[in-house]
Amino acid sequence: MKSISLHAIPDVPRIQKGDDIAQIIFERMPDLEENDVVVIAQKIISKAEGRIRDLRDVQPTPEALELAQRSGRDARLCQVIIEESAEILEVKGKVVVTKLRNGMVCTSAGVDKSNLESDNGNKVVLLPEDADKSAREIREKLESLLGKEVAVIVSDSLGHPSRHGSVGQAIGISGIAGLDKAKGADFYGNSTGAIINVVDQVASAASILMGQSDEGQPVVVVRGVKYQRDLNAGISSVII
Amino acid sequence: MKSISLHAIPDVPRIQKGDDIAQIIFERMPDLEENDVVVIAQKIISKAEGRIRDLRDVQPTPEALELAQRSGRDARLCQVIIEESAEILEVKGKVVVTKLRNGMVCTSAGVDKSNLESDNGNKVVLLPEDADKSAREIREKLESLLGKEVAVIVSDSLGHPSRHGSVGQAIGISGIAGLDKAKGADFYGNSTGAIINVVDQVASAASILMGQSDEGQPVVVVRGVKYQRDLNAGISSVII
Repeated sequence: MKSISLHAIPDVPRIQKGDDIAQIIFERMPDLEENDVVVIAQKIISKAEGRIRDLRDVQPTPEALELAQRSGRDARLCQVIIEESAEILEVKGKVVVTKLRNGMVCTSAGVDKSNLESDNGNKVVLLPEDADKSAREIREKLESLLGKEVAVIVSDSLGHPSRHGSVGQAIGISGIAGLDKAKGADFYGNSTGAIINVVDQVASAASILMGQSDEGQPVVVVRGVKYQRDLNAGISSVII
Repeated sequence: MKSISLHAIPDVPRIQKGDDIAQIIFERMPDLEENDVVVIAQKIISKAEGRIRDLRDVQPTPEALELAQRSGRDARLCQVIIEESAEILEVKGKVVVTKLRNGMVCTSAGVDKSNLESDNGNKVVLLPEDADKSAREIREKLESLLGKEVAVIVSDSLGHPSRHGSVGQAIGISGIAGLDKAKGADFYGNSTGAIINVVDQVASAASILMGQSDEGQPVVVVRGVKYQRDLNAGISSVII
């Protein structure tokens, strides 16, 4: 029977700036298998990379003050959102829809308050500067520790404009093609023309396990996915 | 270690009108476990329910002729799309974005040509008339055959306006709450306010296995998901 399994890496510690995530994964799961896909929550990568801003150090510009007024959000947070965005696309109530420099659309430029040592809500986590690069570095290090080929997906919880709630989506990838231009023809000989977004599906699958624990399970290994190994693929291939 | 597993039901036959999908699943996988989530591709449910139109029987109205001209699609197909939609939201090239009567946004009202006996491309498959009802009937029958509680998700491959390719999404659900209003607070005590779209994540996970075979694996069992059993939840709860 064809099957896929997902395994949360146990006992991932609270990540601090400078932590070596590949080493942390390897120590807790040295039996990773060839072609496993390792899905890592964006937030721990951002923390390891020191992508944290203290809002007390942020001086809002007039543009940020205006966005704060439109959205009802903290002006210093708005300043960070503006700095992290290529473009503010839309403000719907408190929701600020942004386009990042790599073309990705998400809310608040991915800037997030949760899961950080409290500091009275003054600290925010930014997305990794280049999540494909983060994924590549972790993949390369993991592969050298393991002596096996694996893929890495950096995931975040993102929304869909016509659906409630968020699902896991890929924001950085390494070693795996983002899209599968499917089979050409189905079993009746009709062309399907279907293109599957493989990395978003795998990120969503992993996110089921990540979100199931109050303790947080930020790394999930997905085993049994048939994917195309591609060392040059980046997240831009799945972004419209 | 926390884990989730996905299993494709083996040897699902080509489904014909009137086939009993719950019975077919039970015969091939009688060892389903309590709380398994059974994800079923929309197309086999539509076929079992006879939701097929022969385009040779369709007379396009002036509205359909106009849509055909705007989209470059077959006017008879446009007629079916119009009949299946509450509203045509947008035409982008050949892509017709529709809103269904239940509020769901998708392309071409979910009307699809692939995976049907050829007939020179004259037959199209419509979405189930009420996919929540389809899911409920299969869940109730499966539960009575198994003597166990399970959940059922009817899935389709759908797009995201800012991402390439399609991912599995839920279009009908039974026995499972669509959304998880998460944990209230993360492990640092910050409120997360996160709402997770559980059923879309599970549909995406299942879709990884469904899409991996030319033979088609239209039913996938997802085991190990922690979800809230809800006998009243329908897909409208996840649609904006």
